Formats: sequence, structure tokens, C-alpha cells
Amino acid sequence: MVKVGILGAKGYTAGELLRIFLGHPEVEVTCLQARVESPTPVGAYFSFLRGRFPDLMIEPIDLNSFCGNVRVAFLGVPHKTSQEYAAPLLEAGIKVIDLSADFRFRNIATYEKTYNLTHAAPELNREAVYGLPELYREQIKSARLIASPGCYPTSVILACAPFMKHPAIDPQSIIADSKSGVSGAGRAPTDTTHFPECNEAVRPYHVGVHRHQPEIEEKLSEQLGSPVRITFTPHLVPMDRGILSTIYLQLTREEKEDNLRRHLAEFYKSEPFIRILPEGVYPSTKDVVYTNFCDIGLKLDAGTRRLILMSAIDNLTKGASGQAVQAMNLQCGFPETLGLL
Amino acid sequence: MVKVGILGAKGYTAGELLRIFLGHPEVEVTCLQARVESPTPVGAYFSFLRGRFPDLMIEPIDLNSFCGNVRVAFLGVPHKTSQEYAAPLLEAGIKVIDLSADFRFRNIATYEKTYNLTHAAPELNREAVYGLPELYREQIKSARLIASPGCYPTSVILACAPFMKHPAIDPQSIIADSKSGVSGAGRAPTDTTHFPECNEAVRPYHVGVHRHQPEIEEKLSEQLGSPVRITFTPHLVPMDRGILSTIYLQLTREEKEDNLRRHLAEFYKSEPFIRILPEGVYPSTKDVVYTNFCDIGLKLDAGTRRLILMSAIDNLTKGASGQAVQAMNLQCGFPETLGLL
Amino acid sequence: MVKVGILGAKGYTAGELLRIFLGHPEVEVTCLQARVESPTPVGAYFSFLRGRFPDLMIEPIDLNSFCGNVRVAFLGVPHKTSQEYAAPLLEAGIKVIDLSADFRFRNIATYEKTYNLTHAAPELNREAVYGLPELYREQIKSARLIASPGCYPTSVILACAPFMKHPAIDPQSIIADSKSGVSGAGRAPTDTTHFPECNEAVRPYHVGVHRHQPEIEEKLSEQLGSPVRITFTPHLVPMDRGILSTIYLQLTREEKEDNLRRHLAEFYKSEPFIRILPEGVYPSTKDVVYTNFCDIGLKLDAGTRRLILMSAIDNLTKGASGQAVQAMNLQCGFPETLGLL
Amino acid sequence: MVKVGILGAKGYTAGELLRIFLGHPEVEVTCLQARVESPTPVGAYFSFLRGRFPDLMIEPIDLNSFCGNVRVAFLGVPHKTSQEYAAPLLEAGIKVIDLSADFRFRNIATYEKTYNLTHAAPELNREAVYGLPELYREQIKSARLIASPGCYPTSVILACAPFMKHPAIDPQSIIADSKSGVSGAGRAPTDTTHFPECNEAVRPYHVGVHRHQPEIEEKLSEQLGSPVRITFTPHLVPMDRGILSTIYLQLTREEKEDNLRRHLAEFYKSEPFIRILPEGVYPSTKDVVYTNFCDIGLKLDAGTRRLILMSAIDNLTKGASGQAVQAMNLQCGFPETLGLL
Repeated sequence: MVKVGILGAKGYTAGELLRIFLGHPEVEVTCLQARVESPTPVGAYFSFLRGRFPDLMIEPIDLNSFCGNVRVAFLGVPHKTSQEYAAPLLEAGIKVIDLSADFRFRNIATYEKTYNLTHAAPELNREAVYGLPELYREQIKSARLIASPGCYPTSVILACAPFMKHPAIDPQSIIADSKSGVSGAGRAPTDTTHFPECNEAVRPYHVGVHRHQPEIEEKLSEQLGSPVRITFTPHLVPMDRGILSTIYLQLTREEKEDNLRRHLAEFYKSEPFIRILPEGVYPSTKDVVYTNFCDIGLKLDAGTRRLILMSAIDNLTKGASGQAVQAMNLQCGFPETLGLL
Repeated sequence: MVKVGILGAKGYTAGELLRIFLGHPEVEVTCLQARVESPTPVGAYFSFLRGRFPDLMIEPIDLNSFCGNVRVAFLGVPHKTSQEYAAPLLEAGIKVIDLSADFRFRNIATYEKTYNLTHAAPELNREAVYGLPELYREQIKSARLIASPGCYPTSVILACAPFMKHPAIDPQSIIADSKSGVSGAGRAPTDTTHFPECNEAVRPYHVGVHRHQPEIEEKLSEQLGSPVRITFTPHLVPMDRGILSTIYLQLTREEKEDNLRRHLAEFYKSEPFIRILPEGVYPSTKDVVYTNFCDIGLKLDAGTRRLILMSAIDNLTKGASGQAVQAMNLQCGFPETLGLL
Repeated sequence: MVKVGILGAKGYTAGELLRIFLGHPEVEVTCLQARVESPTPVGAYFSFLRGRFPDLMIEPIDLNSFCGNVRVAFLGVPHKTSQEYAAPLLEAGIKVIDLSADFRFRNIATYEKTYNLTHAAPELNREAVYGLPELYREQIKSARLIASPGCYPTSVILACAPFMKHPAIDPQSIIADSKSGVSGAGRAPTDTTHFPECNEAVRPYHVGVHRHQPEIEEKLSEQLGSPVRITFTPHLVPMDRGILSTIYLQLTREEKEDNLRRHLAEFYKSEPFIRILPEGVYPSTKDVVYTNFCDIGLKLDAGTRRLILMSAIDNLTKGASGQAVQAMNLQCGFPETLGLL
Repeated sequence: MVKVGILGAKGYTAGELLRIFLGHPEVEVTCLQARVESPTPVGAYFSFLRGRFPDLMIEPIDLNSFCGNVRVAFLGVPHKTSQEYAAPLLEAGIKVIDLSADFRFRNIATYEKTYNLTHAAPELNREAVYGLPELYREQIKSARLIASPGCYPTSVILACAPFMKHPAIDPQSIIADSKSGVSGAGRAPTDTTHFPECNEAVRPYHVGVHRHQPEIEEKLSEQLGSPVRITFTPHLVPMDRGILSTIYLQLTREEKEDNLRRHLAEFYKSEPFIRILPEGVYPSTKDVVYTNFCDIGLKLDAGTRRLILMSAIDNLTKGASGQAVQAMNLQCGFPETLGLL
């Protein structure tokens, strides 16, 4: 059993962490803190958890108390704030898994440009590991500080990574068209997440300027070994959870669909959370919600020699909290799938 | 007033025609026929129309009786069946607007391959006019037989047509990623349209093999003046109505977003049902449902030199019945927007 | 043609009024005012109306200018504010249709208790007419000031009114269980209307304390001729529009279902917007959305001698703006259904 | 570990059983049978389970083989069919948990009238135990044959049972107004579950004639000790899962809301799956989906002296498969909450 705490315990990613922890045999949740006025029952923020963590309160933030109570910390705070909290937690010997964007970029200049601020902890950023186990498993095992990937990046990177160095693929041709459920927008009510505005509607947003685009580009560039630029269009879809990414890549020579699928399957052959779909079968967000799976399907459009990759995840699970727990399992030496299958 | 009838009056496109006719000052609905056992009140098939056409019944199909009662016929029957009905109706001097795919293809071989059957009325097919007023207005005015476009084709063709001959665009680079509400699948219940299967889910289907793809390709080829191949991925989204198409085109040289938008606006400057959105504003299906509008937005992704076109329509209105009425207005010499604005 | 304006032109009821006005042949919209900083195009607040009222702006509130431009005013402002605006408008000879609760109560003390404030215009309240045409048609025709009914009250009163004096019904036994789409909560985003909170959820709220309960009680008491108390439970349902009210009444003696249905049909026999459903057929919100209809079905539960009334309306149309236009038609001497059928 | 099988393994209740079994440490699923042509992978019927039960196929029904492989059988077959299968399974020494209606009625005449057939196994019906642990825990522990309750009955009975003998309540006054997600209608596509028909719609159905009404009445009559008749109106709501029942009871004398809530809390004080909500807090289906909880809230409408009970469950979990596993836990001597919390 490991003592686990959440800093920033009011948002959807925190709620999803708690849902997962209910079924995790090695996690004892010992501390929840957030910007609250006074200690508040968990059920007041997450009514589905009413009665589930009877001995816990969400308490006002107090790092000393937090550090005294936990060995693993999940940060559910906004970007910028994670930069402040990471150092004292690490100094207290606590393993940190940050769900914000603060430590996701190897190139700090890209981060600073994308998030329009100066990074306050560049030295920590250097040691942070991108928490995508399928690509960074070994580094995660020994990491003190894990930057849990964004939801869109998870869905796009997992689909594309196997093909970045594939000889038949033009790595500069990636177009990612992603469709997300509304929980991806977070818990704060806004005009665009007001039910009568987003129900019965599908619409693109932040076209070509979404902050997850540079994150995807950096990680795919790492896979390729040289800089990659992509086109990325996120869309809001009237459902709670789930991201479906439909991704288009140009082939540079003839190739059989079967070979491409076999290549994909081979790349992920030992991965417990990646499911490669057979010919003619395509992923649906419905198949993965409330799970840590990423389903990937594939179609070769022979007429235009384009490869169509389709991936589906739950934005709150594999796209956030589930993946963070997967990383924690690795970091703590637990079986990677513990509490997630 | 023109006497109008519907053959195949049980489906969603028929219901939408009737909804539109309620507000059309020059239409008198005089005959509704469908595969029914015996005359049935309109409200039995369309409960929202209960009490609205009190003197009309949906009657078993009887072409003689139909021809004696109408001057304009809308065909809501499945493809193949339209081929049988068109000739006798035209011979009776009736104007025909067919909502099936039967007369949409100029190249009959493409039709036969796509729909896997032999066309029974190739001579009629030759005179049929594709009922997309924005591109074929003059031909529609004098047509006896109009082939009303498919829903996906309407959304993709309207967005792409202005750019097919644009000097900065590679016309062979088109990738159309379309998202449709479930009414597009028609009225017959199936596993994939069963509420618990498609609610809270987004998923691609018929990837690279959808029958609307050759329809789009033929019409865009006509615009270009030479053959075009596209990539097309339709998706099912949990909403009743609406199609959003996100379309990617490669630029062949540098171009300003503003210029491209101006070009688009110029192309459609007199069109009553096309709305070009300003910079940074993108279409939503919510803005067009229950209307005959097609909203088109545009974003230039400078980093990859790709143009992103986004169009939104109501699949049952501009994508089917509204557009059919727009064509009828032209065909009958009524103001084009009558009953539609 | 009558010059019409809206004060408080940013909310959902204003948007619905504008949608209706598009199809109303006798309305010319001449002035829109709201709490805006500077004149703003209609499409900025109602993107579905982009391009539809090209010569109109939503302007900052200025009563002088407003009075100079309109002959009929719709008030879409919050309660309390209507009390301030009504007097100057009426003095300027303008007919006023108020969509707030300010003038709905004949008993001003009930209003003051329910809305927890002192009424600022009690004398105007005395002359105000409750804008439910089915019950107050003659008064509406000559009214200067109309108080348009609440959405829940419309659905409950229309179903119950015919039975208040029915000899087989106990008028004190009314239990109204209402289910509403989320647009009923208005346009301001809140925690409870945040998509991921209310999607895939049905829940009761304001149980026994909703402000529409006293409104229903007062009007039903008027029908009965003596005070009535009801039980009222509103529920939020994941859909945009529509209210379904299921209402339970106790029979005091044996009665046939057919007789009760005939009584209902007789009561509303000349009403253009009331549709009485036949035996075994029950209303659905889907049949009435975007219309001004109220569908009413009925079932007698013989075993318990309870009458179950079910009514469906669109909360924004018959439950608000459509009904307001229906009242305006009466007030202005237009055909009652003009622009609404 | 106990060997568990499902007969009738293609429907939603079977899928939900399998989802639960994934997290149940004492269940080994050894046999799945259904009306299939040939052995079929689990993932072909439940795409969310793709890859999860790699060694299992859904096989054609063969009772001999089934009996040789399991110690506990869940029946997911339609009513009438369960009557045929129960005897041979029990004779083979297998514990049987039937999810159909076949063994739910103590009074076999009520069953026969409600389901319009003659019961084929009346002697087994006599020993069957109604699988609602909160009321029949001890009998369940020693039962060979468990009749798992209907979804609506679970939600209504759990709310009402504590008040059947309460001195301030009139037990003949029960009115249950229930709202269900669409998965409650089962897996077979129909007109009424076709997405465009039930999305954006709420509607009552089977008013006063739903088959769950006699089931509720029999069990509440047992609680009271004399016959009870209720009024019951089910509604279909556009969501996947969940039932909210709003229940109205008449008080026969004055009583404090607090006392009634305390009575309810006392009644269920040791129940692991019942959560009683505090004053002013009401249940939402969202809080219980994918869980075995039943949340119950309560409001006293002082003006009419009516008690409003509101209960929420997941129709597939506590309303079907979760409750069935809860019963199995009791029957097999496992901790009651195993695999369910």
C-alpha cells in the first residue's frame, strides 16, 4: 500500500483518479487538497462518490501537511501552479505525477510560447519524464517527476508513433481530426459547455492553434528524430467522455493495408492497453469509456494512397487519470495494469 | 399554387418535405403515397404532423391516381425504385425531383459500380440535372428531372467547389472528414442506430467505401475539368440532425487566409443560403439545423500550408428536402427562397 | 405590419421570438435592446440568426429611443426589471408583453412572497392579463399589458383546467411531475447546466419550492373558484427543449376514460394549438418542439381510480415566445395562429 | 473461485455481468451460451470487451456442456425460456440466478395474467427467492433459485418498503413516476429506440399497464401484509442508463420531514448499497450509473401533506446484473459487496 494524495482535488481528473483508486488494491488515499474555504466532504464535489471515502475531506491547500501524509502526489492544479508545487514535493521525497502541461515539453521555449509564460522550474523540467508508458516506459520507472500527457496528444501520438519511421509513410503529412466529449473542457461552466449550446451540435474550435498541437509535434519529432509539423483540428461532440482521432497520412510508395496493420500490431504487441482492430472494424469511443484502453483501427485508401488511422480513448482515463495511474504503477513497482483492468 | 405529391412518403425526407410545405405559400400537397397496406393518416407516420394535413392520407402506391393529382412529384423511395417511377411520371407531364441516388451520376458506369446494379433508365439519366442550385441553377430551371444531391456531397461540394480551380490549391489533395447526426442513416431501426449503441459514441464507418464518395468526386471533377480523387471518412455523432465536414486541402504556393476567404465570399456572393464566416469563427451544426443554410468557415494552417474548410448543413434540409424544395422553386419559377427563409 | 421591439434581447426567449418573427408576415422588428456595451449584430448573440436581420443591431438600453421605434414591446428582461420598464412603455402607448414573472399574479402578495421582493407597480399589475389564450382570450384582446405564462404553468394548467370543475375529479389531489429540457434554465452557464453534469442524467430540483408552483395554484384556483394546493416536482432531462408534465388526479366516483377524454376534447374543441390524443397514445416532447402545440393525452388507472394527464409543449415556444406571439396576434387583431402554424 | 456461466449471453444484462466479473476476484467465467450459429468471440457481441475474455467464446446452447462447466448460472434469456432451463440446471446442482420475470411472482396467477402464459414450472416457482437483498437477504443466502428483480421494481420497492407500515403513511396512495434510460428497453432495435426517435424526447409509455407494476404491487403488499394497488407511469428519457423514480405518498397525519428521513436511514442503516441523501439534496441517475448504489432522497410537501420519495439506480447494475451479483455473493458465501464496490 502506498499513501497517495491529490493536490487540486476538485476537477474532473481528480474525480476520475478517485474513481480508479476505489478499485486499486495498493493505493491508500491519505490526503486531498484544493482551493476550498474549509474542509469539505468528497461527496460535496463528487456526488457519485458520496459515502465512498468516509474518512477523507478535501482540505485547503497546506503543503506541509500534504507532504507529511503522502508518498505519491497527483497534481490536478492548472498549469503554472504545478511549477510551484513540484519542487517542495520532490524535496520531501514524494513522487510527483503532474496532470497539467507544465512539464510535458522537453523544449522549454515551446512550452513558454505555447502557454505564454516563463517557466519557473526549468531544472525540474529537464528531469521530468513524459508519462506515456507505451513510449517512455523505462524512463517512467525511475522518474521522480512525471508529466502526464494531454488527452488529444495521447490519442494522436499512440496512433502515429509506430509510423513515424515507417519507410512508406511521409511523416510530414499528418492531419489529425479529433472529436472530443465535453468533459475534456474541464469542470468550469462556460458558454460553450452550457448544455443547450453544445448539445445537438458538433463544431471545430481552436483550429490550428490548440495548445496540444505543439505537444504532439514535439513527441512525434522525437520518434522521427527530426522536426515534424502537423495539422490538428479539435472538435466538440455532444457526449460526456471520449476522444476519437481520425488521422490521415500520405504514403510515399505502394504498400498493403495488411502490412501496415501488422506493423502496428507488432509495434504494440506487448502493450496491455492498446487494442489493434481487425480489417474493416473501426474504433468507437463507446468501446473505451471508463477504461484505460486505446483502440486503434486502420484503413488504406488505395485510390489516394492515404493511410487513415483511427484511435479512441476515454479522455479522462487513458487521456488523463488512468494513464497517470498506469505511470504510477510503473514508478512504484506495481504491476502496470493494477487497478486498471 | 402548385399541386405537389410525394411517392415514398414514410421516410425522414418525406417528413421534412411536409414540415417545409406547411410554410410554403405556393405548395398544395395533394397526394402522398407509400408502401402502406391501406390509407393511413399522416400523423400515424409523423406524429409531429398530427392534425396538420387533415384532408390527406398516405395511400398505397397507385401511379395512375398519383399522376392525376399532382404537377410536381418528389420521390422519397429507395434507389432503383426511382428508376422505375420516373418515366411514367415524366410522361404524364409531371416535374420530378428524386431524392434517391438514381439520377445523380452523369457517368452511369460509376453509378452502376457504386450501387451494384444496372441502371434501368439510362436515357432519363442523361437529361437529369444535379439539383445543387449553387452550381447548376440554370439547368435546374428548365429540368424535367432533378436528382437531389446526397447529404454528405452537399456539404463537401459546396465547401470545395470554389477552390477546385484556384491556382494556389492542389485539387488532388482533398481529405473530407465528415460528422453526421443519426437521422442521416434513415428511418429503419438497426443495430448501429439503436440509441444505447450510438448515444455517447462517435465512430467512423464505411471508411473509404461510402457511396457518397464517387458522387463527390464526379461533381468536383466537373468543377475542375479533370478527374479528382478524394479521401472521405464519414462519422456518426450522437445528435439528430446536422453534418459538419472538415476538409483539408494542400496549398501549392503561399497564400493569405484573407485572400482565400475573399475568394470564397466572392464565389458565393449572391447565394441566399450560403453564409461565409469571418476569421476565427467556425460553423456549428447547431446554427443550421431546421434551416436550408450552409455555413462555411475557413482556416489557413500556415505551418503546413494546408487550407482547412469547415461546412455545416442540416442533413435533412439543405442536405435533402430543403434543397429539393429550393430546386422546385427554381423549376416552377417561384422565388428561390420561398418557404425556406 | 406592426413595429415590434424586444427589451432584453440576449436570452433564449428573445432568440425564439426572433426565430418566429422570421416567419411572421405582420411583424417588422424595429428595435432590439439589451445590456450590451455597444451596438452588436444579432448574429453575435444568436449565431443561428447570422445574416438574418441584417439591418438590426442589439443596442444598449435606451427607453426613449425604444419607444420611438416600436408599437409592441416584448420584455425579455429578468423579473423586477419588467416592473420598471412597463410604465414608461405603456405611457408611450406601446402594447407590452412581458415574459418575466412580474405581472403573472393576480394576488400581489403571493408574487411578493414567491419572488421575495416588493412589487414596484401594483396598479399596473391590476390591469395585467395572464397571457394564456386558451383561458383568457377575450381579456388578452383588449389588454395593454400581458403577462406571458411560465413554461411549467403552461403545461400543467392547460392539462388540468378542463377538470377543475369536473364532478368526478378531486381538485385538491393534483400532483404534477414535470420533466424539462435544459434550455428552460436560461442562457447563463451554471454548474447544473454544464454539459458533463446534466448530460446522461435525470434529476429532480427545487422539489416543492419551485416558483412556478404558486403560479399554477393561483390560475387553477381561479378555474375552480376556490383555493387549490398542488404538489409539483420539476426534473431536468438531457435534451434542449420540451416539457412533459405527467399529472395525477384522484377520481371521486367511477367514470369512464372515454368520457373524460371527450370532456377534454370538448373543452378545447376550437383551440388551434391543443391536440388531444386518442386512447393509448401519449404525448412526446419530440412531437411539439419548434411548434406552438400543446399535446395532451390521458389514461384512467381504473385500479386506483386515478386520472393520469400527460401534456407536452416546447418550453421556448408554447411555454414562452410562441405563446407570447399568439397573445400579440390577439392583441393586435391578427389571426391568432399567424406565423405560428 | 467459483465457475460461473451465462445462458443467454448476448443481451445488455449479460454484457453488464461480464463487465462486473472483470473486477470480481472470486468469479471465473467458464461458459457463455446463447442463440448463436457457431462459437463467436465475446468481443463480437460486446465490442467494449474486445480482448478481455480471450479464452472464452459465446457458444450455441447445449445444456449438457453448460452443466459440466459451471457451478453458478445466470440466465439472461427471455421470460418463458427460463422456466425451461431452470429445472435441468438445478438438478445438476447448479445455483441459478434468473434475470427474467419467470420466477419473480409468489402468486403464479398474477404472473400468468401479466405475462399471458401458463407457468411451466410452478413447483420451482414456489422455492424461488426474490433477489432483492435489502428485503430478502436471509432467504437469498440459502436459495437454489433466485429471481432477480425488475429494474423499475428495484427503484420503487427500495424507496417505498420502509414506509409501507409507517403509521403516518397511507400505503394505498402510492404513485410512482419513473424515468428510464433507453438501455432498459433491451438490445433489439425498434422504432421507439431508434436514435432519432428517442433522442431529444421524453415520453410516457405503457401507462398503467406496464408488467413491472404487478411485480411492485406484490412485493409492497408483502411488506404491508395486505394488498396494495399503485399507480405507475414509466417514461423513456434520452440517456443510456439509469432510472429515477419519483414517488408520491399521502400522509395520514402530520409528520416532520426529519423524522421520515431518520426512519428511512434507520431502515437501511446497515445496507452497503443504499445511500440516504440529506435534506434538500436529491438523487441523480448520474451519481449511480456504473455502480450498484441506490440513492434515495425525500421531501415532505407540507402544504399537501404528501411525501415525495426519489430514488436513483443504474437499471443495468442495481436494476439487473449488479444486484444479481450481489445475490450471488450472498448465495455463495462471499462478502456481499465483493466486486461491486
